[in-house]
Amino acid sequence: MKKMGCPYGTHRVIEPKGVLPQPAQKIDNSMEIYDNEILLDVQTLNVDSASFTQIKEQAGGDLDKIKEIMTGIVSERGKHHNPVTGSGGMLIGTVAKIGEGLKGKTDLKVGDKLATLVSLSLTPLVIEEINEIRKDIDQVDIKGQAILFESGIYAVLPDDIAENLALSVLDVAGAPAQTAKLVKPGDTVVVIGGYGKSGMLCLYEAKKRAGVTGKVICVGRRKEGIDGIRDLDLADEYVVANSTNAVELMEAVKEATNGEMADVVINCVNIPNTEMGSILAAKDTGLIYFFSMATSFTKAALGAEGIGRDTTMLIGNGYTKGHAEISLQIMRESEALRKKFEELYA
Amino acid sequence: MKKMGCPYGTHRVIEPKGVLPQPAQKIDNSMEIYDNEILLDVQTLNVDSASFTQIKEQAGGDLDKIKEIMTGIVSERGKHHNPVTGSGGMLIGTVAKIGEGLKGKTDLKVGDKLATLVSLSLTPLVIEEINEIRKDIDQVDIKGQAILFESGIYAVLPDDIAENLALSVLDVAGAPAQTAKLVKPGDTVVVIGGYGKSGMLCLYEAKKRAGVTGKVICVGRRKEGIDGIRDLDLADEYVVANSTNAVELMEAVKEATNGEMADVVINCVNIPNTEMGSILAAKDTGLIYFFSMATSFTKAALGAEGIGRDTTMLIGNGYTKGHAEISLQIMRESEALRKKFEELYA
Repeated sequence: MKKMGCPYGTHRVIEPKGVLPQPAQKIDNSMEIYDNEILLDVQTLNVDSASFTQIKEQAGGDLDKIKEIMTGIVSERGKHHNPVTGSGGMLIGTVAKIGEGLKGKTDLKVGDKLATLVSLSLTPLVIEEINEIRKDIDQVDIKGQAILFESGIYAVLPDDIAENLALSVLDVAGAPAQTAKLVKPGDTVVVIGGYGKSGMLCLYEAKKRAGVTGKVICVGRRKEGIDGIRDLDLADEYVVANSTNAVELMEAVKEATNGEMADVVINCVNIPNTEMGSILAAKDTGLIYFFSMATSFTKAALGAEGIGRDTTMLIGNGYTKGHAEISLQIMRESEALRKKFEELYA
Repeated sequence: MKKMGCPYGTHRVIEPKGVLPQPAQKIDNSMEIYDNEILLDVQTLNVDSASFTQIKEQAGGDLDKIKEIMTGIVSERGKHHNPVTGSGGMLIGTVAKIGEGLKGKTDLKVGDKLATLVSLSLTPLVIEEINEIRKDIDQVDIKGQAILFESGIYAVLPDDIAENLALSVLDVAGAPAQTAKLVKPGDTVVVIGGYGKSGMLCLYEAKKRAGVTGKVICVGRRKEGIDGIRDLDLADEYVVANSTNAVELMEAVKEATNGEMADVVINCVNIPNTEMGSILAAKDTGLIYFFSMATSFTKAALGAEGIGRDTTMLIGNGYTKGHAEISLQIMRESEALRKKFEELYA
């Protein structure tokens, strides 16, 4: 074994020097662990939705091309860090080895099955073989190994929720957990991309927190998408609108709120150019939570400034305290949502 | 005259359709105004610092090349919207014509000299001639015209503050005004890029709001930069550190705060890859305000997630209520800062 590494994994950064593993161009993915690292046998990669959409497009939907692109990214960068979208995803694996330096510091033991809750964009990874690609749910079964740093967060998979279901939920755990913290009773909340994976979880938490005095509005681009979740009773209003058309979205939300607009806008839609629509959907003093990895910082900042809006805009942090517990709990509370998730994502 | 346009200027968007002028690739910069627009004779462009730095680099510092790049951007896009950085800047001009539809709605009259407080990245602009480039202060004198939309915010230039000085301050008005709103008494505040233009204004507001029980730390890359502002008494501590080296910055802030780290981090440094340093400089429950247009959304979002930090990260909105008044007031309150600004930026 090697000596202790940095808790954040900087000892594995190859270039550029001085940065952390996530922004790094290339990291060391040799699978001999440092004393404060954990070696995982990887079973499934859950690729970030923006990333996998881009890869599928680049591959024209061809499975072999998808494999080629994915292994190419990993051999180039030492991690599954999509160079176009900048995003990663997460994985399910089994603990294969625990560094000596972590003894007494971790509850994990060899053989535990866990989901990493840190991004693939910073996780040293080796793909030996790609076994199966589940294109519709962004999941890829592989034979391979990965490293979890000392600061790396994870969730041991619960007994009462199936693995793939848990992985699907944990992948977007930050969004519903943040929604739970941001939404207050009585708030009018707009969830853009409401029938997507993170969108449905956010709707659930928004409705729970806004309560009977609040109003939760589900926005989606396709009528069929909206119709597909109506029976889940996640929202008070459903709006079909194209969020990249800022004016169309604004008008739709104006109508749904009698001109009041939203106190909180949660953006969960993984396509570019929805910043301005989000801003126009919110009250002047509203709050916007951008969870989508397709969000452009400058488009949001300059968009709000450009129309003189005093909106508070938050960068969607994939982590917040208790996010795994909060999001998995939804699967226990809502029978209907659990069924929908099993049907769509597991 | 033409008919009424959209208050946000969508009537001038050429492509893509359905977006607002800021994210648009190309807008209509014909100078015949709609009934709710204002025509300005432009005197000076104050190019966004990230944008001008990029243009200067691309031009290798050559003045004619800078002119060529700037006129190229405007003839390509109908606005001074830097395609590399995505950012704009602002302008000083004189009201040349006011649309019929704005009568009774605006206090402006023909001949008023104002600074636009909306970004150049959404402002229809024609450059007839570039007269002078003040490379060190990102200002460019031109002969040209521009359009202010109905929703466009502006500040009539005050009598007691020189024009170029006011423009320099107004250009970054959002940062100190947001700082004033975010910092509470007793807070430990780190301002990254503290000796830059927005940095100094943020330090001033941070010290004013954090008060005697707080601690304000100025971080900058060059020792000479730090030394150049020590006599202004804007901070309690001064730290020389390279913010793109996340670990170096973390260690420096750790030392300056006795390991406590910052409640609020204000990032004003216009270079890429400072997201992770900002995150590591903040407490786990801290707040980071990214004012720099060089900020990457994904690097910030995944960076915090990657190390399991529950940090609140705000997208720096260039506008907040009263931002022009708050920032210009600093020039009246601080004789020392006013002198420094006159020396450097006016």
